[in-house]
Amino acid sequence: MKLLVVGSMALDTIETPFGKENNILGGSASYFSLAASLFTDVCVVAVVGRDFPEEHIELLKSKGIELEGVTREEGETFRWEGKYGYDLGDPETLATDLNVFENFKPVIPDSYRNSEYVFLANIDPELQLSVLNQVENPKLVACDTMNFWIENKPEELKEVLKHVDLMMLNDSETRALAGVPSITQAAREVLAMGPKALIVKRGEYGALMFSEEGIFWAPSYPLEEVVDPTGAGDTFAGGFMGYAAGHDILDHTGFKTAVVYGSVIASFTVENFSVRRISELEASELDKRFTAFLQLSKLD
Amino acid sequence: MKLLVVGSMALDTIETPFGKENNILGGSASYFSLAASLFTDVCVVAVVGRDFPEEHIELLKSKGIELEGVTREEGETFRWEGKYGYDLGDPETLATDLNVFENFKPVIPDSYRNSEYVFLANIDPELQLSVLNQVENPKLVACDTMNFWIENKPEELKEVLKHVDLMMLNDSETRALAGVPSITQAAREVLAMGPKALIVKRGEYGALMFSEEGIFWAPSYPLEEVVDPTGAGDTFAGGFMGYAAGHDILDHTGFKTAVVYGSVIASFTVENFSVRRISELEASELDKRFTAFLQLSKLD
Repeated sequence: MKLLVVGSMALDTIETPFGKENNILGGSASYFSLAASLFTDVCVVAVVGRDFPEEHIELLKSKGIELEGVTREEGETFRWEGKYGYDLGDPETLATDLNVFENFKPVIPDSYRNSEYVFLANIDPELQLSVLNQVENPKLVACDTMNFWIENKPEELKEVLKHVDLMMLNDSETRALAGVPSITQAAREVLAMGPKALIVKRGEYGALMFSEEGIFWAPSYPLEEVVDPTGAGDTFAGGFMGYAAGHDILDHTGFKTAVVYGSVIASFTVENFSVRRISELEASELDKRFTAFLQLSKLD
Repeated sequence: MKLLVVGSMALDTIETPFGKENNILGGSASYFSLAASLFTDVCVVAVVGRDFPEEHIELLKSKGIELEGVTREEGETFRWEGKYGYDLGDPETLATDLNVFENFKPVIPDSYRNSEYVFLANIDPELQLSVLNQVENPKLVACDTMNFWIENKPEELKEVLKHVDLMMLNDSETRALAGVPSITQAAREVLAMGPKALIVKRGEYGALMFSEEGIFWAPSYPLEEVVDPTGAGDTFAGGFMGYAAGHDILDHTGFKTAVVYGSVIASFTVENFSVRRISELEASELDKRFTAFLQLSKLD
């Protein structure tokens, strides 16, 4: 099945206790599409500036990712600069230059409109709604957001939620959106807003999926070395949606396996800066770690 | 098998967003022994003051807990006052009055010395060493501690670790003890200090067990309502050690089931203030939630 992602492509400057890298490939659509391309056909809608290196375009193309919907505008590419502390938790944002991303108005090419699976990465809820108006009857729409939109565009976001099958949030976003501190109660509130399923991404503590059919808990792989946590959430989403689209999965039981694949891909992402680790990932590595994930919480 | 615990008995005053309770039963030995008594014979060494209510003694006795080693000294019982915020994370300590606990010198009664399973709750490492000198060849010794001892008595604590089979810590204690931020690397460092196994307690994010034989991840039960997190760690330890002693478990595979029982008991503890929920816990409730725990991370 074809999977559409609408999000950002960026040039990140990132400092962690393990090094600093300037203007490396970043952005939700970059991370997502590379992860998803391991399982299915992916098409991207995003915007870049004149300065966006051709090598990144070539990398995505080499993975079979369709880029007809990636427009190159006058001006510079979206840039983000962040610094992670010793605990590799939430980064400090040192600079955000939206540049061409500031006026991003997603236009879905005709050849994309019949995508069966759609992922709305973290962008303005109004733009997410405009994407939904341009696609033809997708089988599964999933959506990400952030506290900024929960605080500043709550009504638009709630309108999006009415049309979304699956929401992906982290702990604090789930609590903020629902306005209650218990994650279980908050999840129920979010499901009442429209989605059939909610996945709460918890970084090194794994992921929780809530739906009418129950709760599923996926562990996070305890890694020897985390080099750069950037992109973990977007590659989790890419792994999940890629696996779901690739196997045409629409039910809670199938989603469980997709959640584990999302966690597996995210665990590779953080082993190096940018998309380096997932760009060179081999199927055998993926299978091996998937098996290790399942083993992690087995009693015998 | 007989299980010995050496720790504190206290009167806690606790405020959470759901209420405030004054001078309720608290302390590591109280929580631990009540949890462990669901599975095995428990004997306690602790100290209380003249003001310690007889009803608490009666409660413990009614569960078959041996209290010969609980001495009543002149003065007041150890008191702790804490306040939890909306997120029910780490509490703010409003007052700590050690009282009779300040001069606690654990004396292990003759009838306890042959205990096969021993738990050293969070007390001064020097006292933990004195306990180890008083017991006869136990099969399994487990130990808890806190950042205060890691910072202030590191050498004494490392001496304790040489004689301990199983260490129980939380995330930050593990990282502080090892001096490295990666939990996997930190766990390896802690194991190199002596223990055959390390359990990292992560509250609502579950627990991780590390040993030579691998890593085990137990989820935490996503609760509808957490009323008071106090005692979760001590009842986790009590459930784990009680189950292990009750079934004479000494190996990694058996420990996995014990970890899940620890998590199950802790999930009940936090549903009410003090030991109220676990004092009235029925075997059928325990079994039902144990099954739900296993279901939580199953793929099919």
